[in-house]
Amino acid sequence: MTSATLTIDLDAIAANWQALDAQTSCETAAVVKANAYGLGADRVAQRLARAGARRFFVALAEEGLSLRKALGEGPEICVFSGHMAGDTDMIRQAQLVPMLNSVEQMQRHQASLRTHPYGIQLDSGMNRLGMEPAEWAGLREAAMAGPLRMVMSHLACADEPDHAMNPHQLRMFDQMTQGLSVPRSLSATGGILLGADYHFDLTRPGIGLYGGQPFAAARQVATIEVPVIQIRDVVPGESVGYGNAWVARTPARIATIAAGYADGILRAMGPKAYVRAGATRCKVVGRISMDLIGVDVTNCKTIPDSVELLGPHQSVDALAEAAGTIGYEILTSLGARYARRYLET
Amino acid sequence: MTSATLTIDLDAIAANWQALDAQTSCETAAVVKANAYGLGADRVAQRLARAGARRFFVALAEEGLSLRKALGEGPEICVFSGHMAGDTDMIRQAQLVPMLNSVEQMQRHQASLRTHPYGIQLDSGMNRLGMEPAEWAGLREAAMAGPLRMVMSHLACADEPDHAMNPHQLRMFDQMTQGLSVPRSLSATGGILLGADYHFDLTRPGIGLYGGQPFAAARQVATIEVPVIQIRDVVPGESVGYGNAWVARTPARIATIAAGYADGILRAMGPKAYVRAGATRCKVVGRISMDLIGVDVTNCKTIPDSVELLGPHQSVDALAEAAGTIGYEILTSLGARYARRYLET
Repeated sequence: MTSATLTIDLDAIAANWQALDAQTSCETAAVVKANAYGLGADRVAQRLARAGARRFFVALAEEGLSLRKALGEGPEICVFSGHMAGDTDMIRQAQLVPMLNSVEQMQRHQASLRTHPYGIQLDSGMNRLGMEPAEWAGLREAAMAGPLRMVMSHLACADEPDHAMNPHQLRMFDQMTQGLSVPRSLSATGGILLGADYHFDLTRPGIGLYGGQPFAAARQVATIEVPVIQIRDVVPGESVGYGNAWVARTPARIATIAAGYADGILRAMGPKAYVRAGATRCKVVGRISMDLIGVDVTNCKTIPDSVELLGPHQSVDALAEAAGTIGYEILTSLGARYARRYLET
Repeated sequence: MTSATLTIDLDAIAANWQALDAQTSCETAAVVKANAYGLGADRVAQRLARAGARRFFVALAEEGLSLRKALGEGPEICVFSGHMAGDTDMIRQAQLVPMLNSVEQMQRHQASLRTHPYGIQLDSGMNRLGMEPAEWAGLREAAMAGPLRMVMSHLACADEPDHAMNPHQLRMFDQMTQGLSVPRSLSATGGILLGADYHFDLTRPGIGLYGGQPFAAARQVATIEVPVIQIRDVVPGESVGYGNAWVARTPARIATIAAGYADGILRAMGPKAYVRAGATRCKVVGRISMDLIGVDVTNCKTIPDSVELLGPHQSVDALAEAAGTIGYEILTSLGARYARRYLET
């Protein structure tokens, strides 16, 4: 195998889930949408089920269908996008619980799967998914009459603990759900860290499971090792890579490594990105290409066979900062070309 | 199916290959590395083989192994990263032709697969892959003595026709390969467009096949349709999405669509991106989330069921410009969650 290796520590994911669970006195679900943030929904969910998670969230019914095959019967699989046109068969077949987002979705569900469990997603101010207060007021009684499993909403600014949007959404959600006799859920990872007022009956951590901010205490989950294809020495004035974007000012030793933006190493991070060769921090030089990256290994005492892009020395958030984005996007971009290795006790 | 749909026009890819082939009087290969730039190497290569392509290029031996299964025996599959440690079995088993990049790779190949065909990749100035002039001078005679299939190099600035690097690399490549009796290859899509001097015996188009610049005459290949999950009306002062990054100044109608950066819709394009709903151009509002995007559909005469992100009205290069990157990265980022549909006569 000469492709880059992505190692995923399933035990670290389970430990992160347990650590987040320990921060609340309510139930803790697990968000495994987008293929568990790119790390492999089947393996991640199986490991979390073993750790005690009984409720999982995905974005689309298709993801739920696939996850049901991995988890078998038992765990509850909830779908954020609700009951969309075309979802009915998947929801029934895989026993999914759609989070109904609108009157239209409620009507669709009642018309096709009247006795099938559902949740309700409320909009508490993010204006992205969920019913508005007025819609909900008109529907609340009918919704409570069916097999309603939970009522949920989502915070827009939970990563900024001091943002006024947080207490505003908390107040809105509280008002919209007062007196209900079903479980209520407002918080993902960021909301868990905002404190007990935000926990209600069920939390839904995602990024915190996978080692990303804002859960600073998370164990590191993903490691990427990229093999070196070849090494060359360049003299001052020589350029490296597309567009001659990097030119050597001093004699330098350049390693060409076997990964690129097709592996989700976002092209935007090029000018600010580093990798590790053992203890040595090595700067990326030149533009990141589709399958190749130039790295300055001049300061390495021995010529490396491979370099570490992500791991103990460089978090997803450090890479995200280099690319001007967030850790979530680093993870979901990782792509299909890695040799994937799962660590699990 | 409620996931977004990615439609790939295989006939358009074949037509682009034929159009690029018609620009030269030499052989035209096809670059299908990185899963054919994200569009599906198996289907793309099978269609191109039907159109007449007999030589394919991939980045890694693993890709070659997989491609051989799709193509069967016959077509030549060349590997840009050459013969890396650990590649030997794959090269033999799948009858791959490694483009040897260094003395070390040449030695590895001779030690393990002495009679197995290979190519030589030369560095004509990009300092990324390939042998340096001095290395090559020492190795040339030995390389010619074995089953050498071709000698190749790669241009660093072919997308900029007036760049001085182009004639410089041409001169270097010419000098390094004069008098050789094997096929020579220097150009990918950009190089083909630089004119006959750059064509030699074999060209290797990649991006031009898939509808991206710099091949302006390319037929459009990929279309992305994203379903609408729900519609809501917002009043001035209401925000949409994470971080309250977008705030309505006038009454607006917002559609939440079922795709996001986990589908390769790069988060960076958010502030400048548009989608189409029928004839209406609709602005992306708020931050692109992992699975969801807000779109301003205020000006739509009818409420859309889905919107077009990529297609006749918006090229990969237009999306790339919004994201501050290149069309190549738009394609390779597309991800695994789309319902993929292939068009083929």
